[in-house]
Amino acid sequence: MKIGILGGGQLARMVIEECSRYGFEFHILSKEKNSPAGLLTSYETVGDWNDEKCLKEFSHNCDIITLENEFIDFRKIRCIEDSETAIYPGSEILMLVQDKFYQKETLKKLGIPVTNFVPIDSMEDIIKFAEINKYPVILKSRTMGYDGKGNYEIKSEPEAKNGYETLRQRGNLMCERFVKFDKEIATQVARNKNGEIKIYPVVETIQKEHICNLVIFSKNMFENIKDKVHEIASEIVTNLNYIGVMGIEMFLNGEEILVNELAPRVHNSGHYTIEGCYTSQFENHVRSILNFPLGNTEAREENSVMINILGRRNGKARITGMKEILSCGNAFLHIYGKQETREGRKMGHITVNDKDLQRAIDTAKECRDKIEM
Amino acid sequence: MKIGILGGGQLARMVIEECSRYGFEFHILSKEKNSPAGLLTSYETVGDWNDEKCLKEFSHNCDIITLENEFIDFRKIRCIEDSETAIYPGSEILMLVQDKFYQKETLKKLGIPVTNFVPIDSMEDIIKFAEINKYPVILKSRTMGYDGKGNYEIKSEPEAKNGYETLRQRGNLMCERFVKFDKEIATQVARNKNGEIKIYPVVETIQKEHICNLVIFSKNMFENIKDKVHEIASEIVTNLNYIGVMGIEMFLNGEEILVNELAPRVHNSGHYTIEGCYTSQFENHVRSILNFPLGNTEAREENSVMINILGRRNGKARITGMKEILSCGNAFLHIYGKQETREGRKMGHITVNDKDLQRAIDTAKECRDKIEM
Repeated sequence: MKIGILGGGQLARMVIEECSRYGFEFHILSKEKNSPAGLLTSYETVGDWNDEKCLKEFSHNCDIITLENEFIDFRKIRCIEDSETAIYPGSEILMLVQDKFYQKETLKKLGIPVTNFVPIDSMEDIIKFAEINKYPVILKSRTMGYDGKGNYEIKSEPEAKNGYETLRQRGNLMCERFVKFDKEIATQVARNKNGEIKIYPVVETIQKEHICNLVIFSKNMFENIKDKVHEIASEIVTNLNYIGVMGIEMFLNGEEILVNELAPRVHNSGHYTIEGCYTSQFENHVRSILNFPLGNTEAREENSVMINILGRRNGKARITGMKEILSCGNAFLHIYGKQETREGRKMGHITVNDKDLQRAIDTAKECRDKIEM
Repeated sequence: MKIGILGGGQLARMVIEECSRYGFEFHILSKEKNSPAGLLTSYETVGDWNDEKCLKEFSHNCDIITLENEFIDFRKIRCIEDSETAIYPGSEILMLVQDKFYQKETLKKLGIPVTNFVPIDSMEDIIKFAEINKYPVILKSRTMGYDGKGNYEIKSEPEAKNGYETLRQRGNLMCERFVKFDKEIATQVARNKNGEIKIYPVVETIQKEHICNLVIFSKNMFENIKDKVHEIASEIVTNLNYIGVMGIEMFLNGEEILVNELAPRVHNSGHYTIEGCYTSQFENHVRSILNFPLGNTEAREENSVMINILGRRNGKARITGMKEILSCGNAFLHIYGKQETREGRKMGHITVNDKDLQRAIDTAKECRDKIEM
């Protein structure tokens, strides 16, 4: 079975790591040689996934295609769909996700709870929306925004101009009512072609400068909202006829849940599933697209905490501090094999399992501080 | 860290699978392109490890070298030792293991229990040995024997001639007293450069036509001999100043233990450690040679059963039956990615964890029967 992945970053890498025992042949299309995923296979193609010729040639060699990056132009994906190679997720899903307005509108139509939002064509639209929804409001680029990029918090009318002028260069805009929340939460859901659905536990995600920093799974932590989250997740993947693993980011306020964003791929909030659950999100993604029976998504640990290892400088990656982490029996280190480190770049992560939640969090942070790269 | 492995078979493959999360760069020297391990890295070199020039060039690109095959001529290994690249195990260990007579003599000198044995230079030597030790005796090639190849059971004097004539073409010979045993057992032991030692549980190994077929770990199964086995394993690796993981095959008769053979590498009897123990033998091998703290070798399951998937025909490998195994939540399938299947060739394995031992064995066999390749 030849599985092609568009993108060669850490997500593709972990898909290979988690599924190589099945003997699949992974083919990676990456913009650069020796990508994190490309290092784990003989079949790395260097090329641009927005070049149709390249996409066609690459997919011609594969039995099935998936992707680790939702920013691949959905129109380009159609050229694969026109060929004989299956691709999951397909162009319809990507089109939906790539435009945040269209994404939220679709969710709203499905009856999924989301915050108030409108498309924005002028500065006046922002002011009008804020009059109804109160300041602050969040102005967003409809496309290509991630890790907080393309978002602008508008606290008062005079700021509307600034925000509008700054973001309009990025393309179409939308405005959202500011969501007050107790916690940001997430889940991952897997669905195969047969329609079998398996949902991972609800986790808390803690962002730091708009980048996911800490993910906390704790047994019973979200017991009161678990059913509601499962219902939301099932509704979304069933109605979209989604195949693969999807990450769902949500806001939690009391017991109220608002869906913030969908990621049509494995997700940073689910890295803990490698050591925390019976079957990782990466394996279930591959099982989903191959229409294999899905693996058990239940937690096998009482608490799992995942912390990202972000670059702290710019330059060639040099790893030190591994020994200290390895002597800690319940901490699992993942290094993505990136040759260059950059401030804020995701270079690896650590998952800690512990019967005591606070100790798991402390250990994760201590381990994080020990590693330098 | 660039880790070179001489050999690209399933053992090297599982080393990569189990350690890729640390971001190491694995370099594979394989006699054929697209070897099982070579498929999991960008750095596969096709070449002959008995060609000194090739060995030197390969090792020059690596920080450290290890091997998955003890049949690499120990004299060739010396050319790596003369360079700046460390290699574990080294030529001394390989020399010891490559000659079964020398291996047993060394063990005997260390006070490790082994069966009676002598070197054989003539047919008369066999008869003389059998007079003292009684028929049957086992005539063995001192070098290059594995999976029963190079062994000849001599049940009576007239057979001595046949055995001698057959095996002498393979080189030097030795004779061993036949060992009656209740069970064949094995363990794996890891030792790093600091001298830290961790020993895996004792398992039963069940051979079929001299090839390891079933490996059974069951909590408490060998509680009565555990200390003795640990003592033997520690003695061996400490006295040989061994660095890496070693497989130790033994015979068990009542409570008497006789060491049969050492494998200076990860071993088929330890494949179950991937899902059965906290740290797999593959990861601990790498930790050992890098002089990292060793991981916990304890079992995390009550029972683990490993069954080999051997080829049943000759030709191109085609896998069917995966779906059935994947729907069985406690069976873990490993396919080695070999392009060609052959009768008796190790193509993969399945590990089953279950609270009930007999059910684990039954499930393993059922799963084995479902897969075709």
